[in-house]
Amino acid sequence: MMRGMVRLALSPRIRRSPFYDATIAAGASDFTVYNKMLMPMSFGDLRGEYDALTQRVAMWDVAAERQVQISGPDAHACAQYLSSRDLTTMVEGQGKYVAMCDHDGVLLNDPVLLKLSGDRYWFSIADADMLLWCRAISAEQGFDVEVSEPDVSPLAVQGPLAEDLVAGLIGEEVRSLKYFWFLETTLEGIPLVVCRSGWSKQGGFELFLQDGTRGTELWDLVAAAGASYGIAPGSPNHVERVESGLLSFGGDTTQGSNPYEAGMASFVQPNIDQDFIGKAALQQVLADGPTRLLVGLEVGADIGDEWLLPVRTPVLLGETQVGTASAIVWSPRLERTIGIAQVDRSVVEAGESVMVSGQRGMHTASITSLPFT
Amino acid sequence: MMRGMVRLALSPRIRRSPFYDATIAAGASDFTVYNKMLMPMSFGDLRGEYDALTQRVAMWDVAAERQVQISGPDAHACAQYLSSRDLTTMVEGQGKYVAMCDHDGVLLNDPVLLKLSGDRYWFSIADADMLLWCRAISAEQGFDVEVSEPDVSPLAVQGPLAEDLVAGLIGEEVRSLKYFWFLETTLEGIPLVVCRSGWSKQGGFELFLQDGTRGTELWDLVAAAGASYGIAPGSPNHVERVESGLLSFGGDTTQGSNPYEAGMASFVQPNIDQDFIGKAALQQVLADGPTRLLVGLEVGADIGDEWLLPVRTPVLLGETQVGTASAIVWSPRLERTIGIAQVDRSVVEAGESVMVSGQRGMHTASITSLPFT
Repeated sequence: MMRGMVRLALSPRIRRSPFYDATIAAGASDFTVYNKMLMPMSFGDLRGEYDALTQRVAMWDVAAERQVQISGPDAHACAQYLSSRDLTTMVEGQGKYVAMCDHDGVLLNDPVLLKLSGDRYWFSIADADMLLWCRAISAEQGFDVEVSEPDVSPLAVQGPLAEDLVAGLIGEEVRSLKYFWFLETTLEGIPLVVCRSGWSKQGGFELFLQDGTRGTELWDLVAAAGASYGIAPGSPNHVERVESGLLSFGGDTTQGSNPYEAGMASFVQPNIDQDFIGKAALQQVLADGPTRLLVGLEVGADIGDEWLLPVRTPVLLGETQVGTASAIVWSPRLERTIGIAQVDRSVVEAGESVMVSGQRGMHTASITSLPFT
Repeated sequence: MMRGMVRLALSPRIRRSPFYDATIAAGASDFTVYNKMLMPMSFGDLRGEYDALTQRVAMWDVAAERQVQISGPDAHACAQYLSSRDLTTMVEGQGKYVAMCDHDGVLLNDPVLLKLSGDRYWFSIADADMLLWCRAISAEQGFDVEVSEPDVSPLAVQGPLAEDLVAGLIGEEVRSLKYFWFLETTLEGIPLVVCRSGWSKQGGFELFLQDGTRGTELWDLVAAAGASYGIAPGSPNHVERVESGLLSFGGDTTQGSNPYEAGMASFVQPNIDQDFIGKAALQQVLADGPTRLLVGLEVGADIGDEWLLPVRTPVLLGETQVGTASAIVWSPRLERTIGIAQVDRSVVEAGESVMVSGQRGMHTASITSLPFT
């Protein structure tokens, strides 16, 4: 399953996570670079990592999911201007999945936004230098805020047994957290934000470590508490996220994608009263409909575990490219081959079958909605 | 020399260069991720790559040095607002090394800026999403420009024989190009910008490929023309750049570094009439002097080829951290161990000796100016 690997030359330019030493000790074998930080992508047994995630509980170093902190008197106004969603009713302890767009309505990032207090927010970002974007906007708009990257590093605990584990470790109060809501606490003196979130549909939490010197300590506490639940180290799981239809920003999106083309329609509110970046452009997309859609592919080929696409591949109708596939996997849960692609809306609406090119040639695929069921 | 390597999990989120296939065919073994693109860092023989660069000629896939194009009626005004240097006298065909700063004077990037025409500029950028920064600024300022990433991928040809090679391949007119000046041309129909530039002090050019479908073709033409000069594939060379004191943005710089703390004092002009981002903050730094300086280290240890620091390491005076070292190498040219660090100005001015921590313990180092001589 380890095809398409090359060696990574380390560099002071590429940061190590506070959990790096712990993940190496736990057998991390393959990494990606995400927000200029090393992030483990495998511990050498992708199927075993999938099974732990979907049947028991998994722990992931997702410190590379960096926070952009907006703090100061204008924090709310600034966060609202940066987000294409109504934040009026947000309260302390609540998170929301938001689209950040440019002035043309192009999707720049799909963070979870956490409201720490009335004057402090975190955008928990996907792979892009949103710190630059937020600094430019806040300075040019004259918002009275500080935009910074705080010492915050998430550790994800995901899977059907995650809640029992985290409740035992942190306290029963985590059970009452709604999705994307969080609480601040300490564990053995380690300052944490505990949020019901994570990049899977298996349930679980992200423990936002607020002291980068204590990564190994937190990792070891979670591993020890998880032993009786069969916890295993893993990483954001490519197969599970395709099954669950979770967006990989920068992977599934292509240049110029707007949120409607990235499956984020239900998280975008262009007709609210508040002003935000890209509002007029998104109103136009809403009126016209997007030109492309993020869809599932049912691929007519039993490819086994071999096709974990490391590159994008064209989606064809006859000889015309009508889209781009960004993932094709064999699903253990569905016992068939599925994928994710961005495809022209006209082709999707006509219910056309398409072709995708793979390592062994062309395969027929039918289009379906996400998530897979 | 390949210590500190891990495997890189490939992903659609991480782009391949137009030269990727050619570099794999030529034996590229180790990559970094730079501007979300794979960039070769070794072909398996770092000393041989150094010798080719310093004695003959080397070719590097530096497509990851992406361009941010500013085009339209306000292109000049926008480029000036983004650059802390007087661009008034720049003419078509000229490039300049510029600092891009934020509103607090913090260095965000150290690109070469190319003026293609009165209404079209390229920032040829180091590793950061400057496209986001430039889009935010231009939209908020209301500049009548388009900010885009064009289909442009540099291939560097560097070394003492580079000029003869490129003159033979492209034409004798390249010999009269001044540093950072360029011309537009074609080679076998391949559209190119040929610039006297590159991240070494060995002389040479960067061939900016303007058609991403023709990467292998250009690579093969350069390799064939270079055969009689003893050309070898390589990459931005860590040892040579330390010897030459070239800045690695994001590696040598730390959070909050201003251009004066990054060795860019001679490229920053805070007292010009033009308005640009960070002007007042940089005037203040110029008046007060920077608090840190980028310096060379003469390390009192014969470490051989073993110490190609993959992480930053503290610089100590007694038990106090007074700086951060980002590179320690053994220099074949100088036949001694040298490094690059950012150190508190007071320590530099007092002429203090410092200590740097390495894999085998602590080493004494004296501080010197850059470049090494």
